[in-house]
Amino acid sequence: MLKLIGQKDSTIDIKNTNNSNSTTNSKETIIRFFSYNENNFEEKELKNIDKLADLFISNRVNWVDIVGTHDFELLKNIGNNFNIHPLIVEDIYTTNQRLKIDYFPDYIFIVLKAINYDKDEVLELEQISLILGKNFVFTFQELQPNQFEQIHDRIRSSKGRIRKLSVDYLVYVILDVLVDNFFNILEDYGDRLDALQETLIQNPTPEILHEIYDFKKEIIKIRKATWPLREVLSQLSKMDSDFINESMGVYIRDVYDHVIQIIDTIETFRDMISGMIDIFMSSVSNKMNEVMKVLTIIATIFIPLTFIAGIYGMNFQNMPELAWKWGYLSIVCVMVVIVIGMIIFFRRKKWL
Amino acid sequence: MLKLIGQKDSTIDIKNTNNSNSTTNSKETIIRFFSYNENNFEEKELKNIDKLADLFISNRVNWVDIVGTHDFELLKNIGNNFNIHPLIVEDIYTTNQRLKIDYFPDYIFIVLKAINYDKDEVLELEQISLILGKNFVFTFQELQPNQFEQIHDRIRSSKGRIRKLSVDYLVYVILDVLVDNFFNILEDYGDRLDALQETLIQNPTPEILHEIYDFKKEIIKIRKATWPLREVLSQLSKMDSDFINESMGVYIRDVYDHVIQIIDTIETFRDMISGMIDIFMSSVSNKMNEVMKVLTIIATIFIPLTFIAGIYGMNFQNMPELAWKWGYLSIVCVMVVIVIGMIIFFRRKKWL
Amino acid sequence: MLKLIGQKDSTIDIKNTNNSNSTTNSKETIIRFFSYNENNFEEKELKNIDKLADLFISNRVNWVDIVGTHDFELLKNIGNNFNIHPLIVEDIYTTNQRLKIDYFPDYIFIVLKAINYDKDEVLELEQISLILGKNFVFTFQELQPNQFEQIHDRIRSSKGRIRKLSVDYLVYVILDVLVDNFFNILEDYGDRLDALQETLIQNPTPEILHEIYDFKKEIIKIRKATWPLREVLSQLSKMDSDFINESMGVYIRDVYDHVIQIIDTIETFRDMISGMIDIFMSSVSNKMNEVMKVLTIIATIFIPLTFIAGIYGMNFQNMPELAWKWGYLSIVCVMVVIVIGMIIFFRRKKWL
Amino acid sequence: MLKLIGQKDSTIDIKNTNNSNSTTNSKETIIRFFSYNENNFEEKELKNIDKLADLFISNRVNWVDIVGTHDFELLKNIGNNFNIHPLIVEDIYTTNQRLKIDYFPDYIFIVLKAINYDKDEVLELEQISLILGKNFVFTFQELQPNQFEQIHDRIRSSKGRIRKLSVDYLVYVILDVLVDNFFNILEDYGDRLDALQETLIQNPTPEILHEIYDFKKEIIKIRKATWPLREVLSQLSKMDSDFINESMGVYIRDVYDHVIQIIDTIETFRDMISGMIDIFMSSVSNKMNEVMKVLTIIATIFIPLTFIAGIYGMNFQNMPELAWKWGYLSIVCVMVVIVIGMIIFFRRKKWL
Amino acid sequence: MLKLIGQKDSTIDIKNTNNSNSTTNSKETIIRFFSYNENNFEEKELKNIDKLADLFISNRVNWVDIVGTHDFELLKNIGNNFNIHPLIVEDIYTTNQRLKIDYFPDYIFIVLKAINYDKDEVLELEQISLILGKNFVFTFQELQPNQFEQIHDRIRSSKGRIRKLSVDYLVYVILDVLVDNFFNILEDYGDRLDALQETLIQNPTPEILHEIYDFKKEIIKIRKATWPLREVLSQLSKMDSDFINESMGVYIRDVYDHVIQIIDTIETFRDMISGMIDIFMSSVSNKMNEVMKVLTIIATIFIPLTFIAGIYGMNFQNMPELAWKWGYLSIVCVMVVIVIGMIIFFRRKKWL
Repeated sequence: MLKLIGQKDSTIDIKNTNNSNSTTNSKETIIRFFSYNENNFEEKELKNIDKLADLFISNRVNWVDIVGTHDFELLKNIGNNFNIHPLIVEDIYTTNQRLKIDYFPDYIFIVLKAINYDKDEVLELEQISLILGKNFVFTFQELQPNQFEQIHDRIRSSKGRIRKLSVDYLVYVILDVLVDNFFNILEDYGDRLDALQETLIQNPTPEILHEIYDFKKEIIKIRKATWPLREVLSQLSKMDSDFINESMGVYIRDVYDHVIQIIDTIETFRDMISGMIDIFMSSVSNKMNEVMKVLTIIATIFIPLTFIAGIYGMNFQNMPELAWKWGYLSIVCVMVVIVIGMIIFFRRKKWL
Repeated sequence: MLKLIGQKDSTIDIKNTNNSNSTTNSKETIIRFFSYNENNFEEKELKNIDKLADLFISNRVNWVDIVGTHDFELLKNIGNNFNIHPLIVEDIYTTNQRLKIDYFPDYIFIVLKAINYDKDEVLELEQISLILGKNFVFTFQELQPNQFEQIHDRIRSSKGRIRKLSVDYLVYVILDVLVDNFFNILEDYGDRLDALQETLIQNPTPEILHEIYDFKKEIIKIRKATWPLREVLSQLSKMDSDFINESMGVYIRDVYDHVIQIIDTIETFRDMISGMIDIFMSSVSNKMNEVMKVLTIIATIFIPLTFIAGIYGMNFQNMPELAWKWGYLSIVCVMVVIVIGMIIFFRRKKWL
Repeated sequence: MLKLIGQKDSTIDIKNTNNSNSTTNSKETIIRFFSYNENNFEEKELKNIDKLADLFISNRVNWVDIVGTHDFELLKNIGNNFNIHPLIVEDIYTTNQRLKIDYFPDYIFIVLKAINYDKDEVLELEQISLILGKNFVFTFQELQPNQFEQIHDRIRSSKGRIRKLSVDYLVYVILDVLVDNFFNILEDYGDRLDALQETLIQNPTPEILHEIYDFKKEIIKIRKATWPLREVLSQLSKMDSDFINESMGVYIRDVYDHVIQIIDTIETFRDMISGMIDIFMSSVSNKMNEVMKVLTIIATIFIPLTFIAGIYGMNFQNMPELAWKWGYLSIVCVMVVIVIGMIIFFRRKKWL
Repeated sequence: MLKLIGQKDSTIDIKNTNNSNSTTNSKETIIRFFSYNENNFEEKELKNIDKLADLFISNRVNWVDIVGTHDFELLKNIGNNFNIHPLIVEDIYTTNQRLKIDYFPDYIFIVLKAINYDKDEVLELEQISLILGKNFVFTFQELQPNQFEQIHDRIRSSKGRIRKLSVDYLVYVILDVLVDNFFNILEDYGDRLDALQETLIQNPTPEILHEIYDFKKEIIKIRKATWPLREVLSQLSKMDSDFINESMGVYIRDVYDHVIQIIDTIETFRDMISGMIDIFMSSVSNKMNEVMKVLTIIATIFIPLTFIAGIYGMNFQNMPELAWKWGYLSIVCVMVVIVIGMIIFFRRKKWL
Repeated sequence: MLKLIGQKDSTIDIKNTNNSNSTTNSKETIIRFFSYNENNFEEKELKNIDKLADLFISNRVNWVDIVGTHDFELLKNIGNNFNIHPLIVEDIYTTNQRLKIDYFPDYIFIVLKAINYDKDEVLELEQISLILGKNFVFTFQELQPNQFEQIHDRIRSSKGRIRKLSVDYLVYVILDVLVDNFFNILEDYGDRLDALQETLIQNPTPEILHEIYDFKKEIIKIRKATWPLREVLSQLSKMDSDFINESMGVYIRDVYDHVIQIIDTIETFRDMISGMIDIFMSSVSNKMNEVMKVLTIIATIFIPLTFIAGIYGMNFQNMPELAWKWGYLSIVCVMVVIVIGMIIFFRRKKWL
């Protein structure tokens, strides 16, 4: 079985080149445990999950927030202790999963993507796995830093409705935070797109085209991380489950609406990008046009003049014009007339 | 919770750059209350909503028309008084919502967009939220001026069927007015498109291309504000609700048909725009072609002539032609023959 | 209400610029009444509809064929007398409706489009509204001439099955006549398309491109008038109604098949048009290529020769070649060799 | 009614220009009758269908194979004798029908297309109509030669399963033969496409482009004749009918799979064709590029040299270089240096 | 019947040119039999299938793994012994089948494709047919080498869950191995695509374009071999069958998710390829632009200078400038000024 997993691992590069587990750069796994209801609140940072099940209190929301999914042994332990299917454990470990939702009698498993800039301001997609049970939630974040700091704060300070409501509301808040992050990134991208368009109009270099295509690739990446969310949320809202109260419908539809808006925005970006490529192509043609016009104007004016000069540079013995007193002057006049005629011609053609 | 809303606020710019609440340019919220049936009619302008619930009369249509949605406290008050879900109140406040319809046991919530030119003749999308209850309607308009003046007039003067029919007919009239506004805007756009096409054929400058793309962007904007209407209306017509009589079906289908026509028109515009881009590209190629032809004609005629003149400009001591009496004249004749030959050649190629 | 209609009127221009009611060019409304069964036949031309209801005979097919829909009062009268919904009356009057079918307990309302060439051989779309009741049919034709003359003749001469069958068969015949007209127009268009393609290959001028785009626009127009027919007929065939016998299924499927064929033909036309645009673009490039080749050949041959002539036109005192007896001749020979070399080069490049 | 048919006839040209009935080129209608079961076999060639019904034997498969559908009277007779709906008779006669399947209580009617090369190796589509009843099959082939000779042989020689199974298996065999013919034609087309691609790469003339578009048109033609088969077969497999045994499911799915493969192949061809057009466009640009390079190299080398020669061809009295002993030689040296410099420059630009 | 098969054989070339049975290059058919449960394991290599049925043990998983499908007699024997439908036997034999799943009361038949590089590193698609019965699996591999060596090893060494679970888990493992192979190939292709893009940017030769199109063709090939898997697996998961336990759902969804990921990757590749073609086209235009600029700069600088030189090369007797002492020098100065002016002009145009 392990070999099989290894095989899948090697395909991670196709999907999320940045996020492979293979780096395992000495990052620790951080386990944070919350147990709360409206009146009580408990928070613990755990070193291992040995006695985790004992900490759970049945009439509270029990949230285990794990950052770092590179420790397969730990994940397997959790799987065994909480009766999670082995394939689900593998899905949490191999972080190139597609977004999905999976139903089991005892829990619901959801795979999501979080988006972030890493230290080098490069866009980074991170897998967030979520297990929702009767009175508990497991979240598995692939990478540091913790995406849910603000939710921790909200629980600690009992801000908003979170402490009053049950485990399904926590899931809503988690989804909402992740989706809002996509919003913020897209806003940045909107600004970048405007800047790119500005530059494009002013100076359409080939580099701009490459930038546009890089931009497009990143948009496709974001799209792949948000598009299936639609399906996931739609299934979540239709689901007939013990862990999700009917009153959650309005919250899930709220997140769903935001996802639709994100998808709309991405489609608009794609439309704008394809428009920009058209503009680029046309401005390249246009520049060539301008180059051609300059060449044509210069050549069309001077080639005939040069010919005339050539005529009177011939060495025939019998060329009466050469001996005329005003011959030179009149030829110069003829040339001036030709130049003026040409200029009028170009004006009419709107080349000047 | 408030922080969360703030986050969403910042994403408004992606959607409707013009309409952000953040300006809150000292505009007041105007609350206008109508209560009518076939025989009775009452109209009030309210300063606050404290005693609003008392004004409602059960066997009348009660319409609260609110212009300005920047006052979150006011909206929250309404929410509390009329038992509106907090998320709905947030949706009314954050005016970058997508069009949608949401069902609750006691009311239906609809988000719509109105279209208008602002003072600077720039297209402006404005969010209209609508809550339809048993015998009341709330409308929340994001911006001034009031879009529903003509409906007020119709109610006051008891024109048409409006006073005879119930609250669902009022919703139909509101939808109809909003959809008709899109019609009028699209008519303007049709004229602008024709003008653009005219200019394009006469003088395809790069500026025209940018104008075409700006046009396209605005069409996409309108499309985003009308496309989901189809779904909203389709759901409204299928809905099995206490607040909507069966006899309303024909009215809703009427609005639905108009929306389909708007969508058709937009698709036609998109088709025409893509055709215009093709025409632009081809006329750029065509102009280059013409430039090339002029260059080729001039160069092809004069380069050989210049060569001949060059020949007889050589200083060889032994060039018998130079000493001939008719040498100059015969060379000029040769040149004339070449020119005529070239012109015949170009005529055949249809370049002249 | 009237004001509302006025608003809609102004949007007619987006759809069918030719067919607006606003012209109301002194055309009269012509009302023709038929009442027939297998044995009896009655035909009347009516001036007004005052006693129309009295003319109806219950065991016959009663057909009221009205040409001209600009008289709103008349339409409203019919609506009142025959209990037609006011919105339907408005739909008949405002002739920019989309094709649709609408069910009511007492009748079915269908909006169709007829296609015709007007006096100036311009394509004209005309709205045909149809109301099918228990034993009667109303048809409202927007414009003259009457599209159904041949049906009148068939009824009068009792040709075919028409007199033997009930009111639903009349509806089939009407649909069939309208669809067949589209067939005939498309046949004309097929011929025009072939002619256009012929011209395109022989002489790809920019005018041809504009013609292609005009052609495309008209095809889009026809498409908008036939595409929704598919849905209308599909609904009609699935409908469970008192006015339509089960035995009509095969007739409706027959018309449906024709509509599918029309749609297929239109799609083929669109494919061909986009192919023609590609051919146009490529022949423009090709012509430019040819122009460039001529320029290149001429320039490449003569520029080096002119240079050589220029060399021996220099006035250096010490140029031994100038004094050689065969200098001139040998230089001419060198030039001939260069020309031959060039020609061989161009042959190899397949430019000559 | 006849006039109506006449109208439809005139539209045949849009669809299958080759196959119009109007030619009626003295071809006879050939009627071949088979009646068989596992033990018995009878074959007859009939002149007319007067006593056809008497020939039918109830516990056998009765197959009437008719070639030639131009004799409307004959078809009408069959219709009357076997209780076929008049519209179906018309569909058999007017051979521009779309592929379809139609259910009646007593029989199933199927319209198919056969593909063949005619004498001039031009692709020809022919309509095959098929009526499947309780224990009989009628096949109507539009044109000679008979497409089903091999089936005749199989029945005569009792080869394979055909004599052992019932009437629905005969229908399967007919469908299979027709679909296999499309396979064979597509194989030919695959070879032609490869050859075209070869030629395209070697010598992209405008003629090739026209050939590609002709190819594309024929592919569209085949597509129109196979695409609806998918639907027809899908309906046939889902059909709940007395004439089709449940055990036929696997046979129908077999034909269905072949149709899917044909459609896949056609889509691949379309993809390849659009790739070829791109290659063509790019090789045209490429050739222009090459032409431009030659021109630029020649002009860029010789224009400066010619200028230098021009300088020393000036007649100023005071030009000291002219009197120098090595003036001429040094100028020639300068020119050689320029040429070498230019060649190095072009090498760097990879133009040489 | 055999003739019919022959016909189909000839169409193999359209689909998988490499894999035709017609070669039958003396490869033997290798039959390997496994019979196992958690405690028992038996493996046999068989020469023929005569006593195969006797080897089956009812409470074990019985797997017959056959490599080589060119021996039609053998396949027919299996069909007769195990009651497989003759059409299924033909499907196994003719290896150009489309992916599909077929249900029978006693077994399920699945057609799949395996992907491999052959000896010459050319991509090769191979048909894998699979028959799943109550307690047995038949696999038919078209070509050597055996694709399932690793599964054999896993069974032999009792690694993982395979020996503990029933026949449907074996099918999952087979599907998983095949799908993983596609992953590995796509990873290679991702690398090749990156390399191609690198080359494209550095040196866009026409050869690169052909390479891109070859790449595209192979991607289409892979797409055809994976796209229908989606449908096959979706049907498998929805299937209500005796041979597939409910607990298999999660495994099938796991493979399904991988297939979706493969399809996503392929779509991304297609997007990237179409972007690369655009980049190619634009860099060709760009290179032409650069060529044009060089020509224009050289011509625009030297043509006017040559004209001036030509002026003073005229032989008029009365040209006062020629006699001036500083005439030559001042003309050279004028030329230098022109050159500087031109360079400034080009700088401004950003051509230099």
